[in-house]
Formats: sequence, C-alpha cells, structure tokens
Amino acid sequence: MESDIGFKTALEEAQKGCEEGGVPIGAALVSADGKLLGRGHNMRIQKGSATLHAEISALESAGRLPAATYRGATMYTTLSPCDMCTGACVLYKVNRVVIGENKTFVGGEDYLKQKGVEVVVLQNEKCEELMKKFISEKPGDWNEDIGEEDS
Amino acid sequence: MESDIGFKTALEEAQKGCEEGGVPIGAALVSADGKLLGRGHNMRIQKGSATLHAEISALESAGRLPAATYRGATMYTTLSPCDMCTGACVLYKVNRVVIGENKTFVGGEDYLKQKGVEVVVLQNEKCEELMKKFISEKPGDWNEDIGEEDS
Repeated sequence: MESDIGFKTALEEAQKGCEEGGVPIGAALVSADGKLLGRGHNMRIQKGSATLHAEISALESAGRLPAATYRGATMYTTLSPCDMCTGACVLYKVNRVVIGENKTFVGGEDYLKQKGVEVVVLQNEKCEELMKKFISEKPGDWNEDIGEEDS
Repeated sequence: MESDIGFKTALEEAQKGCEEGGVPIGAALVSADGKLLGRGHNMRIQKGSATLHAEISALESAGRLPAATYRGATMYTTLSPCDMCTGACVLYKVNRVVIGENKTFVGGEDYLKQKGVEVVVLQNEKCEELMKKFISEKPGDWNEDIGEEDS
C-alpha cells in the first residue's frame, strides 16, 4: 500500500512550485512507519539555486538523521530523479523511491535498482500536466535544470 | 597543468570547515578559462545540513549557470565525492573532477569515468590529515555524513 501522505505531500509541493512560477517538482521523505520526515520542491527559479531540486529540498528539510532512519524510508518525488537526486538516495540508502511520472524525463531509475532500491512509477497525470505546462512556458529554465543546452 | 586557484581554494574551504568544527571537506568549481565559479565546504555540523556537502555547496555558491559553462568546468574537491556529489557532477556534465585524496573514502570515481568525466587524484597529505583528525574526534558525525551506521 502506498503511503497516502507521501505522494500527496510531494504533489502539494509540486503545486506550490507551480504557483510560485518555479519548476513544478515536489518531493517528500517518509519513514518506515509512515511519518513525514521532510518535504520540499525545486527552488531553481525562486532561490536561484542549482542544487535545490525537490528531493534535495526534502532531504534538507528533514535535517540530520541517523543512517538507520533513511534505510527504511521512501522518497516520493513527482518526477523521475536526476543523477544528483538519484545519488542522494543512494548515499543515504533509502529503501524505496516512488515516482509520480517518468514520461517527461527519465533519470537514474536503473542505477537505483542496481543499488537495491525499490522503484515504483505511478504515471500520475497531474504530475505530467504540471511539467508539460512548465516546459511549454519556460523551456530554457527546464533545460538548465537538467543540465541540457537549449535546442 | 592543474589550476592553482581550484585546488588551493578547495583546501582553504576544507580548512575553514575544520576551524568551524565541521566536516573538513572543501570544494571549488573552476571554469574552462580558469575562473573561480563557486566555492564551499561541508555544512553538516554548522547548518545541520544533510545535503550541503562541499561539492553541493560549491555548485550552490556558483548559482544558476548555463549548461555550456559546466561542460568545460572542473570540480576540485578535497575528498573523493560521495554518490550525491558524483551525481551532481554527472547531472551538470562537468568536464573533470580533481580529488585531493581517496585514502579516507572512495566515492563514485568509477561512475564518473563511465560517464566520460576525467578524474584526477592528487593524494594530498594535508587533505588526508584533516580527515584523519576529524574522524578520530567525531566518528559518529563522519558516519552520518556518508550514510553509514556507527560501528
């Protein structure tokens, strides 16, 4: 059973990002027993940040945690995680990554699986819709966020 | 030829971290033409941060950059980069990662090479000395920083 709070929170964060005019990607970190540990959204535009992707924001908001807490945790994210956020999940050995959608972008899912992390993809339409709208309005900001040159 | 400013700055940052009682790892991002783009050090202890490793701090301090600027850049770091910081370098496709030492810890060097990033290891004694001192004094903080349980 999916934790309701995890995906719900990640999607709320993505919507906040959208309302702020930012990259609409949200994330939430949930403990093994279903407690919300951290939440956040992409802050590239809002804070001029190159590193506050949604998952990094969620990990940052969770603060310092013992290794054992990450081990049982699930990272919920509205979009397939980029290499940096994949690496963050691998570093802390989170148990599971639940992804809102991977039609817009496919990140390090294979690498997560190789490292023994369970990966679940929901293909949620709301997540995809938020990204479609953003990319059509601000393609340059999106390319910058994934380290790609403008085409 | 190594950029003097890159490694010098990374080591200065590691020393700042040491003086602050933090994890003594520093990093600097240098452009293709030798300009310092960003610098920073690990802020786990100082800011209670789970994500501000040295390389992330340096990328954050560099702010938003076009993809092309990262492409030619070198990330200098005093210690072999963890999976998160490795992923950040892969995301932005930095050209090269210069590592102060990898005797204390070996991170994602193989993955960087697989992704076409040049990796140089200096085995600098000062970098190693800073880590040795820190780990002997604060082994729990160090384990937390690399997502390991205390032994």
